[in-house]
Amino acid sequence: MKKVGVAILGLGVVGGGTYKILTEHREDYRHNYDVDIVVENVLEKRLDRVRELGIDESKAAANIAEICSNPEVDIVVEVMGGVEPAKSFVLAALNAGKSVVTSNKELFCKYSHELEKAARHNRCGLFYEATCVGGVPVIRTLLDNLQGNTIKSIIGIINGTTNYILTKMSQDGAPYEEVLAQAQELGYAEADPTADVEGYDATYKLSILSSLAFHTKIPYTKIYREGITGINIADIEYGKKLGYTIKLLAIGKNGNNGIEARVHPAFVRSDHPLASVGGSYNAVYITGDAVEDVMLYGRGAGAEPTGSAIVGDIIYCATHVNFQYSTFKNTEDALPTTKFRENFESCYYIRINAFDKTGVLAKVASIFSRCGVGVAQMVQEDAGKNSSVPIIFITHKTKEFSVNKAVAEINATAEIAQVASVIRVVD
Amino acid sequence: MKKVGVAILGLGVVGGGTYKILTEHREDYRHNYDVDIVVENVLEKRLDRVRELGIDESKAAANIAEICSNPEVDIVVEVMGGVEPAKSFVLAALNAGKSVVTSNKELFCKYSHELEKAARHNRCGLFYEATCVGGVPVIRTLLDNLQGNTIKSIIGIINGTTNYILTKMSQDGAPYEEVLAQAQELGYAEADPTADVEGYDATYKLSILSSLAFHTKIPYTKIYREGITGINIADIEYGKKLGYTIKLLAIGKNGNNGIEARVHPAFVRSDHPLASVGGSYNAVYITGDAVEDVMLYGRGAGAEPTGSAIVGDIIYCATHVNFQYSTFKNTEDALPTTKFRENFESCYYIRINAFDKTGVLAKVASIFSRCGVGVAQMVQEDAGKNSSVPIIFITHKTKEFSVNKAVAEINATAEIAQVASVIRVVD
Repeated sequence: MKKVGVAILGLGVVGGGTYKILTEHREDYRHNYDVDIVVENVLEKRLDRVRELGIDESKAAANIAEICSNPEVDIVVEVMGGVEPAKSFVLAALNAGKSVVTSNKELFCKYSHELEKAARHNRCGLFYEATCVGGVPVIRTLLDNLQGNTIKSIIGIINGTTNYILTKMSQDGAPYEEVLAQAQELGYAEADPTADVEGYDATYKLSILSSLAFHTKIPYTKIYREGITGINIADIEYGKKLGYTIKLLAIGKNGNNGIEARVHPAFVRSDHPLASVGGSYNAVYITGDAVEDVMLYGRGAGAEPTGSAIVGDIIYCATHVNFQYSTFKNTEDALPTTKFRENFESCYYIRINAFDKTGVLAKVASIFSRCGVGVAQMVQEDAGKNSSVPIIFITHKTKEFSVNKAVAEINATAEIAQVASVIRVVD
Repeated sequence: MKKVGVAILGLGVVGGGTYKILTEHREDYRHNYDVDIVVENVLEKRLDRVRELGIDESKAAANIAEICSNPEVDIVVEVMGGVEPAKSFVLAALNAGKSVVTSNKELFCKYSHELEKAARHNRCGLFYEATCVGGVPVIRTLLDNLQGNTIKSIIGIINGTTNYILTKMSQDGAPYEEVLAQAQELGYAEADPTADVEGYDATYKLSILSSLAFHTKIPYTKIYREGITGINIADIEYGKKLGYTIKLLAIGKNGNNGIEARVHPAFVRSDHPLASVGGSYNAVYITGDAVEDVMLYGRGAGAEPTGSAIVGDIIYCATHVNFQYSTFKNTEDALPTTKFRENFESCYYIRINAFDKTGVLAKVASIFSRCGVGVAQMVQEDAGKNSSVPIIFITHKTKEFSVNKAVAEINATAEIAQVASVIRVVD
């Protein structure tokens, strides 16, 4: 039986989960895959974590060099997160001839070209299923199942924290700040939630996924980004009544007018499969020219779901003779031939507060018409106790520039109406 | 650039779709995967099909021997369906050193042990993603993504015809016979619909999927099977009111009491992700001990979605040095060590027609109690114009034998009550 030695860099949540899965299933893997996977080393400053997992302290390496020179280690699992020292450690491992499995989205998003170059040069594997959407098998599907397709779009709910917050706001009618505080208490959101709620985490993942899907590097710096901090409970409620559910979406599209990649809150029709992806669940909805629509759904984070993706990569690496890399031209920046589309098209939800009841509709309608914004649906809500009347418009598919122009013109008529919110609607 | 020659056996719907994808994307594959995939031969009696696809008639082989002896053919794609002559052709190709990609679920379900033995012996690949659920990437996910898990259950909507029929019945309130006739007209159901509506097609697929998931052969003959022909529109309506949606489910479970595998109509909670899988869409819901829940959703059939799975396998085969087989002990029959569970546990929806209004509830309740059937929910419906009163029970999780016993006892009280329907409820 083939013996494969593993070293785990970092025993945080995901590292601990990976260790647990590997040790609990060792006999299964021997039986099912004819491979004996043994954790030979760990790299973790906090010895209490080593002890808590029941790992023999002799396996705790003093530094990365010790792991690189250990002939018993075949695969290095990097689950530290962040760019440094993770990057140096991964490069050291590859240069020592070890294959690498990583869950580090920031590192892979920013430096895949460098890591992959080192892996190819040293004829080692570099696996990264766990960088995107935890236990959801999206990288494997793009690499080994949908290769026959021209992928037209990827639409994902790929951040668990924001999906938890938006689902809770929607279910309980509670405001953003209150739900964020709850999520922080429950461990669903970090003390500093910026990376999640402002959409940075989602842009890293979308960069990786859309690069694979479209076979060309989509740097995260080219991705339009807008977080969920401005989402208002009133808009969630109005949206619901109109048959829409709010989500933070990561959208990659490849069409005749070029590639567009963006992360922002959006309304999806409540009968769309993505609308029912609730709480901390994630999903990726892929449209290919042959396969039509495929949706992959599951736990986007967590010790064992992410550990499952890592162990899947370890077993793939251990049981395949040849390695597999990304299939796009893995360059540092976008290729000069890649055309990015900036003036996106979308439908829009626009809520206007009308102060002057007479003539406001005619005025607003004429601004929309002049700016080339077609209105598909209009609802005038009850004013309630407010002095202004909320009017909600759902537009036809419109260019972003046209909507911005219309919004600016409406806001210039401050005495009669003002735009309270603009949220994209995915059709 | 590596050149890979393909022969397609059968130019029906899926064969035609595969040819179309391969030829339309040839340049893409050259660019993205550095492989030139060329259709070198086809085997198809109907020359009109060859011509319609624009295939040079010189590529139409007279017989399988011509293809086996063509040195330009590396991969044989079998999309004929049925056991013979497909089986002989696949074995001939493998014995001639060609790798095989098949979409033939009946063949793979019944003879995978024989085909795989020939493939290993000849060091050829044998790929079968397209045997199960069309474009949904479930085989690849089980083989190359979820290997780290002990799979606890697979619950699938894996037959498009029956899902179309049940969705239509549920949406339109139309009876089975009427919707079946419509489906036949639209090409969603065969002239002889038996294989689909009686659940045979689903048992083939469940046999393949549960064998992979549980790492042991689950012959289709061991799978309990019940079709949808007895599903009544009244039960669909009562179920809806109670928050359930009817589906034909394929269920594989692996627990302490052994393996259970079954195909039958069942109610799922309407907020379960499987409930929203409508029309001809399919989905597979997999629960693993590490990954928790994963759902894979997409087109379960059709020329191009199934072609997408086939082309994915072709490119995998063309770009990997080593081949991959099923990872279960691929025996002809179940291993003697495999324990099958027969007395399934499930919740039940039981509809009773009560003829004698006084005392009937007490009588039925005492029968349930005596048989060990716990009642979770009870609704007495309005009798309307009927002489009998429908009473609906949803039971707690109960052993199948206990429910059968209770049903028999109630039916023995024909003067006061009779059981109209029994449908399992998946919790």
